[in-house]
Amino acid sequence: MLTNQDRLKQCFQKTQYKIGGNGARNVGVLQEALSKVDSLTESDMYGSGSLIEDFEAKFARLLGKEAAVFFPSGTMAQQIALRIWSDRANNRNVAYHPLAHLEIHEQDGLKKLHQMKTFLLGEEDRLLNLADIKALPEPVAAILIELPQREIGGKLPSFAELKEISAYCREKHIALHLDGARLFEVLPYYQKSAAEVAELFDSVYLSFYKGIGGIAGAILAGTADFCTEAEIWKRRYGGDLISLYPYILSADYYFEKRMPKMAQYFTKSRELAKRWNGTEKVTTQPEIPVSNMFHVYFEGASEAVSDILADLMDECDLGITGYLLEKDAGSCSFELSIGDATLEVDPKRMERFF
Amino acid sequence: MLTNQDRLKQCFQKTQYKIGGNGARNVGVLQEALSKVDSLTESDMYGSGSLIEDFEAKFARLLGKEAAVFFPSGTMAQQIALRIWSDRANNRNVAYHPLAHLEIHEQDGLKKLHQMKTFLLGEEDRLLNLADIKALPEPVAAILIELPQREIGGKLPSFAELKEISAYCREKHIALHLDGARLFEVLPYYQKSAAEVAELFDSVYLSFYKGIGGIAGAILAGTADFCTEAEIWKRRYGGDLISLYPYILSADYYFEKRMPKMAQYFTKSRELAKRWNGTEKVTTQPEIPVSNMFHVYFEGASEAVSDILADLMDECDLGITGYLLEKDAGSCSFELSIGDATLEVDPKRMERFF
Repeated sequence: MLTNQDRLKQCFQKTQYKIGGNGARNVGVLQEALSKVDSLTESDMYGSGSLIEDFEAKFARLLGKEAAVFFPSGTMAQQIALRIWSDRANNRNVAYHPLAHLEIHEQDGLKKLHQMKTFLLGEEDRLLNLADIKALPEPVAAILIELPQREIGGKLPSFAELKEISAYCREKHIALHLDGARLFEVLPYYQKSAAEVAELFDSVYLSFYKGIGGIAGAILAGTADFCTEAEIWKRRYGGDLISLYPYILSADYYFEKRMPKMAQYFTKSRELAKRWNGTEKVTTQPEIPVSNMFHVYFEGASEAVSDILADLMDECDLGITGYLLEKDAGSCSFELSIGDATLEVDPKRMERFF
Repeated sequence: MLTNQDRLKQCFQKTQYKIGGNGARNVGVLQEALSKVDSLTESDMYGSGSLIEDFEAKFARLLGKEAAVFFPSGTMAQQIALRIWSDRANNRNVAYHPLAHLEIHEQDGLKKLHQMKTFLLGEEDRLLNLADIKALPEPVAAILIELPQREIGGKLPSFAELKEISAYCREKHIALHLDGARLFEVLPYYQKSAAEVAELFDSVYLSFYKGIGGIAGAILAGTADFCTEAEIWKRRYGGDLISLYPYILSADYYFEKRMPKMAQYFTKSRELAKRWNGTEKVTTQPEIPVSNMFHVYFEGASEAVSDILADLMDECDLGITGYLLEKDAGSCSFELSIGDATLEVDPKRMERFF
């Protein structure tokens, strides 16, 4: 028997147009990225070679940091960043938001592999703030801040507040690490360069398969000695692959393709959130997006909402979502990220759906 | 000023034909593997999806194990295997050869990430044996055996001795893990299937960029519950990438292409070793290869030998090696692995070189 959620997923997959994302994650994405690459281009070799070194230098420059290291994943990069700060402070305490990726999506890797003690700053449904940091019961080696805070719809502190947090951490000798999985996506809101945001942090992680739409991979940037240590840990983790070029070439290709469109995604995101909020029994979090993403909330249980959405998706041939998360008090939600797929939908089709 | 070793490397890179390997590690290797793949083929998603699951099932079958997990690297896969066995035995002791990959190439990841205590079995210049295992000063949770033992030229115990070691470990409740980075490469010598070798071990790791010549990636196989645990650790390590398909598709492509040629590589390896051993001041380790690989030793310091080799490579347009390792007692050596590139060299060119 097909559940309503199964049907929702099937209907979503069947639709030709999608309201979110950068298109299907299929092998064509990699084939496109490689199609113009000279087949004689030499592979990187265990972190060496111009293919990886030039890419790392490019992102070090972009972030205004001395150096950068390419990692297969952000999970690996961020655990390592926190471990390095922890070793330097000789303190196993670190702090982050209760819904940080490290706390909810990594099977406790940080604790199991590094015996780290984590302090959760603030509450699940809001951003962490300076008062939360000041209220920490023990000294911490490092604090991780995610911009935007994805699990609550992609919210952001003001740039002024970020500066205050950064100044406080510097004063207290707490290393400040940026989970910038979606850093490019918030630059149009802050009206800052990546380097201006990164300047407030001691280490910065970037992802290439969120708004950029690459295959996988991450950058970790900081001082030269920080990155030298990070490379040693990358080897320890088994992340220093003989060849990372499939991820590097595609990251670079899609970065060049989509970085110039971040402002467009942001504008479209605000436009679409407004449209959702003007629909009965629907709201978004945040109400006015500060990046290319937001969460859509429906009044009603997921069973009932699934049915309505599935019918509408079928009728309009427009994929909205393949899942709904049950929330408290008879509501349900899904996450929407604006990308190339969104821009390609005919506005008439979108309007028909709404 | 160009050193003799620099010149050797340059001369090697310049040659059109190579005596070892499967050809240059360039982007064309991936482009070839992807050229026949339907661009609509869906990516794996964090370890799920038919692309990764079918591949894992294929190698579980091949190895006669209940399950298998694809990993981005063997470093990650093997540390995790030893950690699982260690947890099950509630014992942080493990043992392996003094030149095991984990001991010399992983920046002590096993010790730094898992607080493991390692015992080195036997001596650097020979294979470990049952007597070494019996002489262990403390109980160990697991023993890792590499087939063939790469750092000593690719040597192998007899299959009978392996069976004895396996029986002893089972009797003593010591988990036996196979570092099978080059497992396919030894099957022609043992005249056994992969499953017949794997049967002697509780867990098995395979690599796809040695004799197979893929881009990167590894398989870890064992019981279903072992693999379920391994997947949790893979997530903890940051190895559970959203998309591993660039490695999986190329591993599968080159496995199908080169697995049938392993016997040819082995025959050619013996033939070439004989030719080297018939050359003045040259010997190989082992003298008679048991896989597609061996080490070539020259009498004389690397400075002098580099010069002679560089001249010969230039003259014959045949790449022999790009480096020489200085050994004790005025000798030097390099590693030779037989692959497609070897088979493609005109025998006359080879003969001219010798």
